[in-house]
Amino acid sequence: MYMTRYEPANSFETPRFSGVRTFMRLPNVRDLKNSDAAIVGAPFDTGTTFRVGARFGPEGIRSVSHLLRPYNPSQDIAIFDHLSVIDYGDVPVVPGYVEGSYRRIAERLEPIHRAGVVPIVLGGDHSIALPELRAAAAVHGPLALVQFDAHPDTWDAYFGQKHTHGTPFRRAVEEGFLRPENSIQVGMRGSLFDSGDWNDSRELGFELISADEVRELGISETISRIHERIGDSKAYVSFDVEFVDPAFAPGTGTPEVGGLHKP
Amino acid sequence: MYMTRYEPANSFETPRFSGVRTFMRLPNVRDLKNSDAAIVGAPFDTGTTFRVGARFGPEGIRSVSHLLRPYNPSQDIAIFDHLSVIDYGDVPVVPGYVEGSYRRIAERLEPIHRAGVVPIVLGGDHSIALPELRAAAAVHGPLALVQFDAHPDTWDAYFGQKHTHGTPFRRAVEEGFLRPENSIQVGMRGSLFDSGDWNDSRELGFELISADEVRELGISETISRIHERIGDSKAYVSFDVEFVDPAFAPGTGTPEVGGLHKP
Amino acid sequence: MYMTRYEPANSFETPRFSGVRTFMRLPNVRDLKNSDAAIVGAPFDTGTTFRVGARFGPEGIRSVSHLLRPYNPSQDIAIFDHLSVIDYGDVPVVPGYVEGSYRRIAERLEPIHRAGVVPIVLGGDHSIALPELRAAAAVHGPLALVQFDAHPDTWDAYFGQKHTHGTPFRRAVEEGFLRPENSIQVGMRGSLFDSGDWNDSRELGFELISADEVRELGISETISRIHERIGDSKAYVSFDVEFVDPAFAPGTGTPEVGGLHKP
Amino acid sequence: MYMTRYEPANSFETPRFSGVRTFMRLPNVRDLKNSDAAIVGAPFDTGTTFRVGARFGPEGIRSVSHLLRPYNPSQDIAIFDHLSVIDYGDVPVVPGYVEGSYRRIAERLEPIHRAGVVPIVLGGDHSIALPELRAAAAVHGPLALVQFDAHPDTWDAYFGQKHTHGTPFRRAVEEGFLRPENSIQVGMRGSLFDSGDWNDSRELGFELISADEVRELGISETISRIHERIGDSKAYVSFDVEFVDPAFAPGTGTPEVGGLHKP
Amino acid sequence: MYMTRYEPANSFETPRFSGVRTFMRLPNVRDLKNSDAAIVGAPFDTGTTFRVGARFGPEGIRSVSHLLRPYNPSQDIAIFDHLSVIDYGDVPVVPGYVEGSYRRIAERLEPIHRAGVVPIVLGGDHSIALPELRAAAAVHGPLALVQFDAHPDTWDAYFGQKHTHGTPFRRAVEEGFLRPENSIQVGMRGSLFDSGDWNDSRELGFELISADEVRELGISETISRIHERIGDSKAYVSFDVEFVDPAFAPGTGTPEVGGLHKP
Amino acid sequence: MYMTRYEPANSFETPRFSGVRTFMRLPNVRDLKNSDAAIVGAPFDTGTTFRVGARFGPEGIRSVSHLLRPYNPSQDIAIFDHLSVIDYGDVPVVPGYVEGSYRRIAERLEPIHRAGVVPIVLGGDHSIALPELRAAAAVHGPLALVQFDAHPDTWDAYFGQKHTHGTPFRRAVEEGFLRPENSIQVGMRGSLFDSGDWNDSRELGFELISADEVRELGISETISRIHERIGDSKAYVSFDVEFVDPAFAPGTGTPEVGGLHKP
Repeated sequence: MYMTRYEPANSFETPRFSGVRTFMRLPNVRDLKNSDAAIVGAPFDTGTTFRVGARFGPEGIRSVSHLLRPYNPSQDIAIFDHLSVIDYGDVPVVPGYVEGSYRRIAERLEPIHRAGVVPIVLGGDHSIALPELRAAAAVHGPLALVQFDAHPDTWDAYFGQKHTHGTPFRRAVEEGFLRPENSIQVGMRGSLFDSGDWNDSRELGFELISADEVRELGISETISRIHERIGDSKAYVSFDVEFVDPAFAPGTGTPEVGGLHKP
Repeated sequence: MYMTRYEPANSFETPRFSGVRTFMRLPNVRDLKNSDAAIVGAPFDTGTTFRVGARFGPEGIRSVSHLLRPYNPSQDIAIFDHLSVIDYGDVPVVPGYVEGSYRRIAERLEPIHRAGVVPIVLGGDHSIALPELRAAAAVHGPLALVQFDAHPDTWDAYFGQKHTHGTPFRRAVEEGFLRPENSIQVGMRGSLFDSGDWNDSRELGFELISADEVRELGISETISRIHERIGDSKAYVSFDVEFVDPAFAPGTGTPEVGGLHKP
Repeated sequence: MYMTRYEPANSFETPRFSGVRTFMRLPNVRDLKNSDAAIVGAPFDTGTTFRVGARFGPEGIRSVSHLLRPYNPSQDIAIFDHLSVIDYGDVPVVPGYVEGSYRRIAERLEPIHRAGVVPIVLGGDHSIALPELRAAAAVHGPLALVQFDAHPDTWDAYFGQKHTHGTPFRRAVEEGFLRPENSIQVGMRGSLFDSGDWNDSRELGFELISADEVRELGISETISRIHERIGDSKAYVSFDVEFVDPAFAPGTGTPEVGGLHKP
Repeated sequence: MYMTRYEPANSFETPRFSGVRTFMRLPNVRDLKNSDAAIVGAPFDTGTTFRVGARFGPEGIRSVSHLLRPYNPSQDIAIFDHLSVIDYGDVPVVPGYVEGSYRRIAERLEPIHRAGVVPIVLGGDHSIALPELRAAAAVHGPLALVQFDAHPDTWDAYFGQKHTHGTPFRRAVEEGFLRPENSIQVGMRGSLFDSGDWNDSRELGFELISADEVRELGISETISRIHERIGDSKAYVSFDVEFVDPAFAPGTGTPEVGGLHKP
Repeated sequence: MYMTRYEPANSFETPRFSGVRTFMRLPNVRDLKNSDAAIVGAPFDTGTTFRVGARFGPEGIRSVSHLLRPYNPSQDIAIFDHLSVIDYGDVPVVPGYVEGSYRRIAERLEPIHRAGVVPIVLGGDHSIALPELRAAAAVHGPLALVQFDAHPDTWDAYFGQKHTHGTPFRRAVEEGFLRPENSIQVGMRGSLFDSGDWNDSRELGFELISADEVRELGISETISRIHERIGDSKAYVSFDVEFVDPAFAPGTGTPEVGGLHKP
Repeated sequence: MYMTRYEPANSFETPRFSGVRTFMRLPNVRDLKNSDAAIVGAPFDTGTTFRVGARFGPEGIRSVSHLLRPYNPSQDIAIFDHLSVIDYGDVPVVPGYVEGSYRRIAERLEPIHRAGVVPIVLGGDHSIALPELRAAAAVHGPLALVQFDAHPDTWDAYFGQKHTHGTPFRRAVEEGFLRPENSIQVGMRGSLFDSGDWNDSRELGFELISADEVRELGISETISRIHERIGDSKAYVSFDVEFVDPAFAPGTGTPEVGGLHKP
């Protein structure tokens, strides 16, 4: 089917610490015709309200991804036997400028969707979810949201500004990119500015499962709840590193104790 | 009731990384008349027998506390709707001198108790518990101890010295500041110098629950045991960061594996 | 003259590691009537094009400033015998938004100038120089610039944007805040995007001394050149930590080897 | 029985941060006649295929071991009431040379076994297991393997080389040092190069328990399975720090998420 | 002349923190026909006798090289107006195996020399100089050595081994790759194992200039001495990061105080 | 003369990263009869008024000293051809207790002096100079002081306490351990609490050379001044790591910019 099948370099022939750092040692090309999925970096952190630095996130993820091996024994799957994947490089964001960066991110991602390729975006702060959804919805229509996170990121504004890492999913609902009735936010926890914070999210139409509820439900039941919620919709999955406890992922910008991890 | 109600700065108006670092962005004042509780730093680490540096503890806690938001969703409480709280600053300890520092700590805390305000002391090493109790007992009489920790800190002496971070609670019993029959130590674990170490604590009259027992009992049952033990006594609560596993709180001076954390 | 003279806490009475961290242990008040100078934090780094984090600059400077003592033996001056100085706190910037932050910075600083008090601003990235100059020029008219830095920061735009940490001094000339004929940039060095980069600065009317020229001239002669250039103008002094070699100030966002330091 | 009983320095007389760093503050002697066990460092990391640095492992372990106290309350045992233990120093390995280092390691350990003393070897990367087993089997014959690890380390070769930290246990079977039918590998997890990776280990005759299986079985049942497997054989126990989750032991060379820890 | 001219990405269009990390943001291709120079990584540190980790050197250099701009104002040269340069990727070394790695390094570099392209190799420890010279001499014949370093690296053996980071230049003389009478070692300093260490280097025929002599001669005179020594020979230039003082380049494996830097 | 000559382990036979960490890999013995000098650790930091941690100084110095080689090419001397040196271990100080630690330090050092062996003490904070001098003066009578430092450490008291790291040399004069007329303090710099700080030192009778004066005099002339000052007296040499600029020795407790280093 493909002219070329893209897969990681063979780590029995060349050491994993060698080579220009691409995601999982995949080829750094832009050949959408021969790809099923494309890794795209969005090194943007202007939306961050506390610790910055996520603009170096794509570099960091690519560096440590050299340790990933292609076969997953828990799920018994060798992903690259089934899919051709490329490292598409980074979106040329505009540091310090939210609107211009949003435009560039959406413009870079839309053709990938149109080519029938799934973009896997490496952030960057969570504000990039809005242009990601803009590009996805332009091709696929409104999507179900599956968000693994500590915070719902559905505030209306921060310091009077509508676009920060705390607001993308409210904006996405307002702009019609999401199907709230099929959307779910998992892992919510931590102190809040107000008792209304989580209700706001529910009023937008989202289902919300707290970290404590995940502990009670267990992993399998949580996954069932997610599947049920999505139904037949196409889904956009967003994983915020805050979902994991900061002892396991200390690099996050707004660390929140009590996160999830394998006991 | 209050002339002024003290509460944290509004983080939707000014970023949490801005401003002189006080605890939770509270006002740095000494107005006991209008306060329910007062944060007090005790930057003292001369009592430490291994890694030092806890004298920078109050600075570190104040810095990271800027991430705390005022509403707790697990307990459904917005604490500053009920209480007025201030950052009272630090006790002027004497680094390198235990006795002089004890005197200064007790002298600074006693008027706070007399004003009916609850001091919340940021340490500092655990040796400061003794002057804290001296000030509290002078006003309230002997107290129940609720101690979350890895070690009982009830040794008699270290290198022939009666005052170190390993001895304050034995001293407090000897000086009559505690009601051992209402006191409890929770989270005990780790290698010991001698099999008698924990028995010593029991012989002083304390109840002692090990970290492994907490795991077996569960959180709710452990809390019941604590309430039962305290009864109607006024209580002094002491939380040593060692209670938590060092993967979650690596800055502790005598790290002890196997500590408690949210699974 | 003053009702109150503000000076640092006495470090022979209370240890320098104690107390809420203000600059040099000065009082954190806003009493402009009794002050000659006011320390003001501008925790803003949205203008940064490489490593971010300068929003934590004011916190870091305040923390380490506790080691400064009030008497300078090289210049034989005890500054607080002559001046009353306060820590005025931080400007409430808007992270992620350049224009709004510029407005807030200028609005906060202008009244300080009007009160005849000298603001000493702790950054923050160098983009904050523009609103600083806006406030100063509104009160004092166009000023001489004395800039210690590695880069002239006089580019026209970055990624099509007029406001970044690489452009403030061109903007300041365009907006009439500076007297180029009395302005001087000292310490220039490092690789450039183009051979024209330094000429652009000279075409704006600035004098420019490279780091290598400072080494040849020596400190005294360099200072004479600066005094000569300023003449009788009021001056705005800007010190970018990049001026110093990154071995001595590693926290800078765009490290440039070959910086100045005491041999 | 002993002329001298070797035990740690008394930490109530001299602080634990004092003295030349030996393991647990034991004497640094080579008196095998009066010892039951001997700590031996093997500072070798030439077998490592990703992050290096384990050559500083013995130094690091000795440094932090000064915090260990001699009595274990969970098992109610004061080990030095029963055993005399020494710090025998390090094997003089040859950095950069696998074969020569293997020879030196085996030659240093064999006389310890012959003296009836148990060597406890501090690595070093896992490739040292092969010469450890060579020395042990020369004295005791083939042994049962009890390996706590994330990876089976039974690959055939890496980059065409037979000796790396990924191959020692296959080599040990081939050379007749192990009794596969009594051997067990516990804690296996993480992505693999191939679905056959774990089967290879089983085909060598080892039993293999994954980290997820340990979670299901629980600690007691896992220990029973290990005892059952060993039977009456003499056993060689190998503990790779990767067994523990990298949040708890971040210094490992090939971190693998999902490791075991006390919940 | 070229079909394609290779140069860095334009940092006024895309931020320097974006994109897969290649050296100076150059294209990661292997098109020798259209190149004047090729960056080649040699991530090898098995030759190291103290601190390891130089296998991550090429990754680290590429990451920080994103800060380099194309115009050098001290020398008034815009290098990419004159040369086409590519990032050729890394040599597939064999970690833990010196001989095999030497072979792979030489085999990868020789065709680059044959194509008339200059390889610029990013190490890796200094043992890689031997295969670099092997490849260069095979095409160009014996070369002059210009070595900036703290140590001559001309020992005969270490732990009985002929190939370590302390021996490559003696081996290179023995194998006929160098012209000692045109070779020079600059920056020598630090404690030695023996008074003969530097004499050995002189007996091989090298000229040797200590760091203290460089300070006395000054930069210009030192450069004249180097040019005089080389004469008309083709030269191999080797820059060991130890040349620089460890305060300015702390990542080196065997730090040596008193190194050179810009005063 | 000696029965045994003590010298470092041979680093061509065993790697420098191996073995229990003693100073320069010297034997850890207490054989004063066969020694010319003895390394003694004094892991004490209770006298510190700012950053603590110097109690881990002896461990840190021993660890990094493994990089020192025995021959010094600048001075053309192979020290162990002339002297037998041992690592005597650490003084058993009492953390948190100044007086008791002083007593233990003096008691441990005096017999070394009496045996005609020169103790080389690794600190520890500068307060240990007083018991060092107490032991030395008990055997040798009053001594000349040669102090390399940033601060004179001759304050009278800190927080009302006579014994801190800022007071030992005033105490030593008062107790008659020093000959002020032969004593000299070199490298003084940094901000002071008062203009009188350096004068106090001169009034005690010391000569004082500032860091700026050392730069003007040059190294040779500074050394002449020191020799002249000492005359025929026996001298006690004290080297505070603060003497060096903090870019080169960042671990110091009270960093002071403008320190000395090789240009």
